Amino acid sequence: METNAFFQSKEVLDFNKELQNYHLGPLWSVIPEIMHKEPKPDAVPYLWKWETIEKKLQEATEIFTPDRGGERRAIYLANPGTLNRKPWGWASTTNTLYAAVQLILPGEVAPSHRHTQSALRFIQKGKGAYSTVQGQRLFMEEGDFLTTPKGLWHGHGHEGTDPMYWMDCLDIPFIYSTGATFFEPHPEKLESPSLPDNYGARKYQGGMVRPIGDRNRQDAPLGSYKWTQTEAALEGLSAFEPDPFDGTAVEFINPSTGQTANPTIAAWMQLLPTGFHSKAHRHTNSAIYHVYKGEGYTVIDGIRYDWSEGDYFVVPNWAWHEHVNLSTKEALLFSTNDLPIMEMLGLQQEEVYPRNQGYQEIKGEFAPLFA
Amino acid sequence: METNAFFQSKEVLDFNKELQNYHLGPLWSVIPEIMHKEPKPDAVPYLWKWETIEKKLQEATEIFTPDRGGERRAIYLANPGTLNRKPWGWASTTNTLYAAVQLILPGEVAPSHRHTQSALRFIQKGKGAYSTVQGQRLFMEEGDFLTTPKGLWHGHGHEGTDPMYWMDCLDIPFIYSTGATFFEPHPEKLESPSLPDNYGARKYQGGMVRPIGDRNRQDAPLGSYKWTQTEAALEGLSAFEPDPFDGTAVEFINPSTGQTANPTIAAWMQLLPTGFHSKAHRHTNSAIYHVYKGEGYTVIDGIRYDWSEGDYFVVPNWAWHEHVNLSTKEALLFSTNDLPIMEMLGLQQEEVYPRNQGYQEIKGEFAPLFA
Amino acid sequence: METNAFFQSKEVLDFNKELQNYHLGPLWSVIPEIMHKEPKPDAVPYLWKWETIEKKLQEATEIFTPDRGGERRAIYLANPGTLNRKPWGWASTTNTLYAAVQLILPGEVAPSHRHTQSALRFIQKGKGAYSTVQGQRLFMEEGDFLTTPKGLWHGHGHEGTDPMYWMDCLDIPFIYSTGATFFEPHPEKLESPSLPDNYGARKYQGGMVRPIGDRNRQDAPLGSYKWTQTEAALEGLSAFEPDPFDGTAVEFINPSTGQTANPTIAAWMQLLPTGFHSKAHRHTNSAIYHVYKGEGYTVIDGIRYDWSEGDYFVVPNWAWHEHVNLSTKEALLFSTNDLPIMEMLGLQQEEVYPRNQGYQEIKGEFAPLFA
Amino acid sequence: METNAFFQSKEVLDFNKELQNYHLGPLWSVIPEIMHKEPKPDAVPYLWKWETIEKKLQEATEIFTPDRGGERRAIYLANPGTLNRKPWGWASTTNTLYAAVQLILPGEVAPSHRHTQSALRFIQKGKGAYSTVQGQRLFMEEGDFLTTPKGLWHGHGHEGTDPMYWMDCLDIPFIYSTGATFFEPHPEKLESPSLPDNYGARKYQGGMVRPIGDRNRQDAPLGSYKWTQTEAALEGLSAFEPDPFDGTAVEFINPSTGQTANPTIAAWMQLLPTGFHSKAHRHTNSAIYHVYKGEGYTVIDGIRYDWSEGDYFVVPNWAWHEHVNLSTKEALLFSTNDLPIMEMLGLQQEEVYPRNQGYQEIKGEFAPLFA
Repeated sequence: METNAFFQSKEVLDFNKELQNYHLGPLWSVIPEIMHKEPKPDAVPYLWKWETIEKKLQEATEIFTPDRGGERRAIYLANPGTLNRKPWGWASTTNTLYAAVQLILPGEVAPSHRHTQSALRFIQKGKGAYSTVQGQRLFMEEGDFLTTPKGLWHGHGHEGTDPMYWMDCLDIPFIYSTGATFFEPHPEKLESPSLPDNYGARKYQGGMVRPIGDRNRQDAPLGSYKWTQTEAALEGLSAFEPDPFDGTAVEFINPSTGQTANPTIAAWMQLLPTGFHSKAHRHTNSAIYHVYKGEGYTVIDGIRYDWSEGDYFVVPNWAWHEHVNLSTKEALLFSTNDLPIMEMLGLQQEEVYPRNQGYQEIKGEFAPLFA
Repeated sequence: METNAFFQSKEVLDFNKELQNYHLGPLWSVIPEIMHKEPKPDAVPYLWKWETIEKKLQEATEIFTPDRGGERRAIYLANPGTLNRKPWGWASTTNTLYAAVQLILPGEVAPSHRHTQSALRFIQKGKGAYSTVQGQRLFMEEGDFLTTPKGLWHGHGHEGTDPMYWMDCLDIPFIYSTGATFFEPHPEKLESPSLPDNYGARKYQGGMVRPIGDRNRQDAPLGSYKWTQTEAALEGLSAFEPDPFDGTAVEFINPSTGQTANPTIAAWMQLLPTGFHSKAHRHTNSAIYHVYKGEGYTVIDGIRYDWSEGDYFVVPNWAWHEHVNLSTKEALLFSTNDLPIMEMLGLQQEEVYPRNQGYQEIKGEFAPLFA
Repeated sequence: METNAFFQSKEVLDFNKELQNYHLGPLWSVIPEIMHKEPKPDAVPYLWKWETIEKKLQEATEIFTPDRGGERRAIYLANPGTLNRKPWGWASTTNTLYAAVQLILPGEVAPSHRHTQSALRFIQKGKGAYSTVQGQRLFMEEGDFLTTPKGLWHGHGHEGTDPMYWMDCLDIPFIYSTGATFFEPHPEKLESPSLPDNYGARKYQGGMVRPIGDRNRQDAPLGSYKWTQTEAALEGLSAFEPDPFDGTAVEFINPSTGQTANPTIAAWMQLLPTGFHSKAHRHTNSAIYHVYKGEGYTVIDGIRYDWSEGDYFVVPNWAWHEHVNLSTKEALLFSTNDLPIMEMLGLQQEEVYPRNQGYQEIKGEFAPLFA
Repeated sequence: METNAFFQSKEVLDFNKELQNYHLGPLWSVIPEIMHKEPKPDAVPYLWKWETIEKKLQEATEIFTPDRGGERRAIYLANPGTLNRKPWGWASTTNTLYAAVQLILPGEVAPSHRHTQSALRFIQKGKGAYSTVQGQRLFMEEGDFLTTPKGLWHGHGHEGTDPMYWMDCLDIPFIYSTGATFFEPHPEKLESPSLPDNYGARKYQGGMVRPIGDRNRQDAPLGSYKWTQTEAALEGLSAFEPDPFDGTAVEFINPSTGQTANPTIAAWMQLLPTGFHSKAHRHTNSAIYHVYKGEGYTVIDGIRYDWSEGDYFVVPNWAWHEHVNLSTKEALLFSTNDLPIMEMLGLQQEEVYPRNQGYQEIKGEFAPLFA
């Protein structure tokens, strides 16, 4: 009898069912679906249009208000492939990462708390809001990147005049899987400042030099990376050949360790020159992209995902992908990925697309699913 | 309006539902169920009797035979709390770990393969079988511990005359959650030996001394830890005061790193002296226990789980637990836990039971669930 | 008999002498001079005036010319306390570090070589010269800091029109002590460029962001730290309270590791605000100071060392020291130290001056020794 | 003018001399003697006969007695090549390491102290003496290895009836070179026991298993490695092919780290089978050998050094060496080396002897130097 047929036989299925009565399971039947020959994540490629997210966030201002309680006005990107994870799809955007867009209105406050999940933020729009992280107010401007590794107090306030939007990314699904989360509200609603505003960013406004007082720090001494610095870095780098797969790309680092700014989530800013069409590759890690500037498309496993400013899309683990900039100027993609998790666990592998001179054959175009 | 009532209001629920149409999710409603105030794992405490496992494995010899294909005759312990993980509960015994009992009959072969999951084995019964790991046959005897970290070729054969039973433990659910698994069958059915039998164990039969050729090895130079050595270690240690929570306990280590033998799963052998009643504590990590010798009970979150030789039971993350030896001699508990994962991610916390002089109040006795 | 008297007795001295015949030594007599109760380095505090160094370097241009062979026109600071180290005092400026000033004239070339000693450079005066490090020309300007960790090819050329002076610092005495030096001339006289000029500095001209291509690099991806960046860092930091012992101070770091730019030698730039008088402390590590800008004095073990622009001075291990800026504007001290060595070996200790409100009592003023 | 001639010219020598008046040094003249093309340590190969050492130690019992003060009755091996290191040749046996033989008589006490130097001991002869290390008495027997990393209290006593001899090895010259030593006598003459005797050795008497209480220990949890264990390790290993350069060899490791037992000094036990003649090689690190059992010779840089039980000899950095066992049974060589220092500093290199099928041409035999 052929193996698969055997595993589908009544004899086997009956036995499997009988085992379940005793809370036992048949490894022989399970292996192919649990230990895949190559990565086959629950999460699937998907793209969310900015118009939809923005509209829903604006509607949410009517429903979710700070005085009604709750922690944050954030709408997350729920990967259609992870709905079988209960509860709430574990708030999965990729298998391990959660991404959301948060909206805070002038005068609002998002209360301070801390948790075992690590968080980062990318500022999409607006100014005048701040995060208070461990007693330091970090004022946020478009293009800034902020990191709040696990265990640090953080809350938000807004002293400006316009709505403020930012991307949040956390390792919520990954930490959820371990069963080991802690979460604690701050005794004050919003933690009072105990350090100068923007302390870290001002101390680190040079290049690869570090205040001597920050030698041997265990925490993240730098919480806010200003756009002006990121821009200068991209400018310096763009004098040279871009990476064939990722364009001109930088990652934010922790000056205490030389590791990625957030221990479990890498954050990158990629500049795609005008007309740039990257080669395709795939890797074990997953990634979430936010289109900071420009328009173009990304081919993921043969499907074309067109994007323009503000959109978000997902490249799951081991999916072939390549990027094309159709803008008349440089496109800027901010992305987060779980490469640090893959490296920590020794799981990272990478493969270059082997056919068609490195470009995928396009099999179709993305169309949104509706539930 | 009170916060919870608000989150249950029709207005909110309708909006949440509407979001789902766009594959978006409302963080405000999700947080309490996803970011718990303290660990609240899917996995629950449970105990499996040896009689049941043994009976089902024997029945399985009629159904699952090597000639019918498939990888292993192993029945896993399916935690009743993780059934909402699709598919197959992710083969979860705790949130991150899988445990099973494997039975191999004389003359049978379990084919060689390798995968990104890490594995370990504890030999429960029988002799004459071996694992071939990276070209080295490791003959297995009762009480031996074997480790096969991710990426190593391994298969099994049996040259003895009696059925051979062992416990397998892998990080299947944890690796599944990341979406990053690779699995590969060996080109031969069973990898041919290329090193002397029991090479590692014989090279490491002294104490804390290492062959100089193994300096700087990146892999696990020692795959098999003989019971005679573990027994000597327990004997030496049992001259001193046992640990109040864990008795006289040792863990198996990798001589290249001083870390636990398997990078993601710790393996311990615990000796509970006659009459020993440990104090209760809880910790972020989860654990799976196998009763190697003796009888007694463990109180987990106030429920008493009586165990005797051969049984298996689970202590999920953050569950209060204490052990009692009711045997007339020492009890021996082999256990595996995900402490290395918790430490890698900086999640480990521990708490001593604060009331009743450190012993839990017993609220009931364990009764098996039937599906 | 009192211990010291006993060790000085004829009986003991005769026996000690007799032992020497057999190349044996008496530990009992040696311990107090070899295993000091607290650090008692061979190196002593000293100060070298820039006028002297400059004059001698200019004279050296008549004597040491590239066509006559030899590696470098550099005059080193020979610590008067280390002359008992044969040969050549091991070129010791402190116990572990060598410092020199190098002069290169327009059109001259210093040949490429590599060695197991690590090197760094601080540009004191001039422009138009470059270091070629691993195929990359790093053009040097006043205030720039360059690092050339062990094993990297490096040579120098000069395309400018004026004499160019820089400070070199290497771990020559430390490596000499181990007996483990390798040194190799490059097959070309001056290694030909194979990378764009100033490649690293241009790639790293933003803040704490790193080109993704430099993830996981084992070598030093950044060889040249421009003064404009260091200046920006000091400016940002000087809005806050200076360190009581070191003023407003930064160290140069390796973006791959978050460690000091050079694995064995830390390099710092310290800004002392106008009128700043630091508290005194001492630490296990030694330091070499170069006065980049300003004038003032440093009290070392109770002796006052007056300094002005261009001077060099040494603070040996465990010497009390405090700095005073007498300039009408900020003083800038560039310094190198062996703190990385001390930390690697677990030897670092630090002590705050316990008397007189933290300021040393001044016992005298420095006067140069002449041989 | 040819380079060397130029450096020897009167003009240059006069200038060099003039520089010295200002405590300045001419790098051009110094480089060849300070930055060697390959390792050229001060220390030279040498061999000390046991008869001499034993005789001198016995004579020393008349001179150096505990009541006369002083720390230890130990006679060290003073490398003839390091006499230019002042004071006392820095007690150098190799460039970085000190070795001595210590004699303690029944009833004597060597006072407790601690220091920044790391120490280890190998027990050559006798029984009944103990080291008290951090409150634990470690009783010593022939063949035992003890480690006392820096900073730990240690003193010795003797409850037996015969003279007790052991080898000491410390990193005295290496630490001396840094100028960073601390040394402190214990408030008690001999530290009182606060832990069970032989606590560590008894806890670690199994194989590669570790008491769970010793997870995450920063210090060295195992101070004494019993000969019975080392012997078992050699026996297990000797079933397999010996290393062509080092025979059947093991190193002692720290169970907390998998690193060598002593952070700066490796300790090895090598078994040379009967008739074994190793191939020659050389490496950056230096080594000190003690002949525990057997007789034979070692060829070092072409010179033959004949040894028999109890002798000591030195293989300096980068010296070619090969060992020959002339005994009728296995020879046992205990050795210490500074490989951990070389690895920490990234200096280790190794080379196989390229001529004559891997065996050196013998140019002469060792004859002791007399001063």
